[in-house]
Amino acid sequence: MNERLRKLIYLFRPRSVAIVGGSSMPNKIGTVLMKNLIEGRFMGDVYAVNPKYTAVLGKPCYPKVSDIPKPVDCVIIATPAETVPGILEDCGSKGVKGVIVLSGGFEEVGRNDLADRMKAISEKYNIPVIGPNCLGVFDPYTRVDSIFLPAFKLERPGPGNIAFVTQSGAVGSTVVDLAAHYGMGISKFISYGNGTVLNECDMLEFLEKDKETEIIILYLEGVKDGRRLLEWMKKVNPKKPIVAMKAGKYGKAMAAARSHTGNIAGNYMAYKAAFRQAKVTEANDLQELFDFVKIFNQPLPKGNRVAVITNGGGMGVLTADAINSEGMEIADYSEETKVALKKILPSYGNVGNPLDLVADAGVEAYDKAIEVLMADEGVDSLAIVLLTQTPPMDERIIGVLTRASDDRRKAVVTISVGGAYTEAYQRALESKGVPSYNSPLAAVKAMHMLTNYAAWKGKMKKEG
Amino acid sequence: MNERLRKLIYLFRPRSVAIVGGSSMPNKIGTVLMKNLIEGRFMGDVYAVNPKYTAVLGKPCYPKVSDIPKPVDCVIIATPAETVPGILEDCGSKGVKGVIVLSGGFEEVGRNDLADRMKAISEKYNIPVIGPNCLGVFDPYTRVDSIFLPAFKLERPGPGNIAFVTQSGAVGSTVVDLAAHYGMGISKFISYGNGTVLNECDMLEFLEKDKETEIIILYLEGVKDGRRLLEWMKKVNPKKPIVAMKAGKYGKAMAAARSHTGNIAGNYMAYKAAFRQAKVTEANDLQELFDFVKIFNQPLPKGNRVAVITNGGGMGVLTADAINSEGMEIADYSEETKVALKKILPSYGNVGNPLDLVADAGVEAYDKAIEVLMADEGVDSLAIVLLTQTPPMDERIIGVLTRASDDRRKAVVTISVGGAYTEAYQRALESKGVPSYNSPLAAVKAMHMLTNYAAWKGKMKKEG
Repeated sequence: MNERLRKLIYLFRPRSVAIVGGSSMPNKIGTVLMKNLIEGRFMGDVYAVNPKYTAVLGKPCYPKVSDIPKPVDCVIIATPAETVPGILEDCGSKGVKGVIVLSGGFEEVGRNDLADRMKAISEKYNIPVIGPNCLGVFDPYTRVDSIFLPAFKLERPGPGNIAFVTQSGAVGSTVVDLAAHYGMGISKFISYGNGTVLNECDMLEFLEKDKETEIIILYLEGVKDGRRLLEWMKKVNPKKPIVAMKAGKYGKAMAAARSHTGNIAGNYMAYKAAFRQAKVTEANDLQELFDFVKIFNQPLPKGNRVAVITNGGGMGVLTADAINSEGMEIADYSEETKVALKKILPSYGNVGNPLDLVADAGVEAYDKAIEVLMADEGVDSLAIVLLTQTPPMDERIIGVLTRASDDRRKAVVTISVGGAYTEAYQRALESKGVPSYNSPLAAVKAMHMLTNYAAWKGKMKKEG
Repeated sequence: MNERLRKLIYLFRPRSVAIVGGSSMPNKIGTVLMKNLIEGRFMGDVYAVNPKYTAVLGKPCYPKVSDIPKPVDCVIIATPAETVPGILEDCGSKGVKGVIVLSGGFEEVGRNDLADRMKAISEKYNIPVIGPNCLGVFDPYTRVDSIFLPAFKLERPGPGNIAFVTQSGAVGSTVVDLAAHYGMGISKFISYGNGTVLNECDMLEFLEKDKETEIIILYLEGVKDGRRLLEWMKKVNPKKPIVAMKAGKYGKAMAAARSHTGNIAGNYMAYKAAFRQAKVTEANDLQELFDFVKIFNQPLPKGNRVAVITNGGGMGVLTADAINSEGMEIADYSEETKVALKKILPSYGNVGNPLDLVADAGVEAYDKAIEVLMADEGVDSLAIVLLTQTPPMDERIIGVLTRASDDRRKAVVTISVGGAYTEAYQRALESKGVPSYNSPLAAVKAMHMLTNYAAWKGKMKKEG
């Protein structure tokens, strides 16, 4: 990793942040940025840079970055494109550690001259730059936040181990919002926009060494250097699984992607081939992106034999359907398992897979059934359906399912379908790292992805 | 329609309901049922039937149904299977109009003798019976409710035009919960379980004439008479579009379906063929079921040419990708349209499809763009992406999108992705009949289904 990339850490752990364009006027991006840092409880110093004021929202304000009397680690620029090279030069001479350029108006509208000047200044001062035309970064550990959308409209997730690298700001941020809503934690959010100075390859190189990151989401529209991306995916994916999605696949969608961040979208088939070659998990849809990534917190299953537990027969049937349609296998139980399960079920229950504990089942039945199936060598993973609405069900089930997920002998997914009440359970599960899905098919698809990744890693190990 | 089936209306519009097994003991099904009627503001008289009490939760209680001094339209039975034939006989002799049997323990556990007795008594008294082994009915117009799950755990939807016919109680109820959560209205919920007396064919026959119902969801595990089902689907689907889903498709899933409601699941390929022959829209997943049905409130598009409007470039790209992958067409605009759109966009904007209004776009830009595209003959439907989180966006967009949906010149879908704030917008849209999706692919898939149905209806008209 070169020195410029190493300095990127200052954008996630800055001791001080300056907002160029910082303001307190309503509906201004500079205002939202200041508020997000202040109300979001960012721990470092905050400065505004704006010739019009001497203070903004209680924070000191200076005409230029170089006027700030103390060292500045991170500068966020939200002023028109034409002003950016000058500000960047000022940051360089001041010794700023890293810069985020939110402003649009560069390659995506044909202003390559401005982009080239940015690149030159970044090299001259060896200063990492994220953007332009992006949302920048959010780090839940330090609460540094350049997403210029208010937190009450777009929720911020808590700390976790999933890094989110996205070219499109809007798409990335909505998925982050969804993640937060479901209680999923992240390590870092990086929206890099045009990727003029640092692009997706640099982010992979950086995240490979990042302590907080164990799983990576990569949302691409177009890339500049496909070969380098393939190399970095190959290098990082075995250590930190990557779930990737390519937008702008064909025809008019491809053209739209180009006008969005100024990168050539390129032949989708080349991306697909690269994902396959690097064994990166590909998502075809935002929902899949979200569904797939959270399964990678589970242990790698040894095979594709799934045991289904349910307290609603119909949902068990649907889960079995999904296992069939995904080409996974419905596990056969050992004789020992059958005997043990028989004891858990009511007299009229049948030992089967799906194992229908019936609607009368309470938390204890789940606990016992999970224990029995965890011990069966013929089972590689558990798909646990939970109808939260049945009378004997209560919140102790969260503890039981968390223990199952933490057990680490087998991969676990949970499936619950419903409205607000059910969502509350799902959020509780997600916040404890238990993957929870609201569709049997989505859960089984995710398990399929994890199983494929596990099989490939197992093969890699054997081959040495 | 025979007289017994005609009497089914009494289960949805009863002047009085008696709960056999009605109770006030905590965690009893009979208690939940009483509470759901009382707290759910059912407008008719409510009785409990239970030899242990003379009053339950402030409602009169009698030892037997025939002891109730006034006429009873609807009886809900929630007592053990063995007691059901006797109670049904008592209902018949009393002149009860219709019965719902929630209790399990019939065909699904091999007690065909009990099922046969039920059938005989139903015929003897010409009394319609829903069940056994089911959740029965919910009607949002009258608030009659036999779903034995408390409303705080499982939300009930408001009035609408979608009837929900489901074999599995649990699966059906969770989708109803989802529907309610998103503000979608329904006309009737019918969980018919084993379908011993009345099955899915009877429900289609009944719903064909039902005034409140315009769209039908059909969730099947197994059926007794496939030929009759095909006939009824063929008859009803052209008037009231049916979205169907078959669970228990293959192997062990099929076996699980059988043990669930005692019906032979049958060869899935036969179902698939029947759906195709009747031109019924098939869903392969609960999420699809939910996604597909709500699009049928839109006018039928004349072709497959979609215009995309967005205030976030990346989401536009994803929607275009989905249009390509679904084999739909990205519409070409007329010259007139291009000129008109140019006026709406900021100077740096490009007239294209997807039409990126950019994040600065306010409610007015949407309103004008929709008006222009509604007038373009080269556009068959609109996919409107809405990032709710941008600064200029506000709640007036609900009115604009509702007008677009009510315009009826073209089919409209909306797409918004996000957490709680975005969900609030989505719920507002759904409650006004504007289909709202949280994934571009899901929205476009639904539009594809509607377009296919429209093409078939158009062909039918021409030929017929």
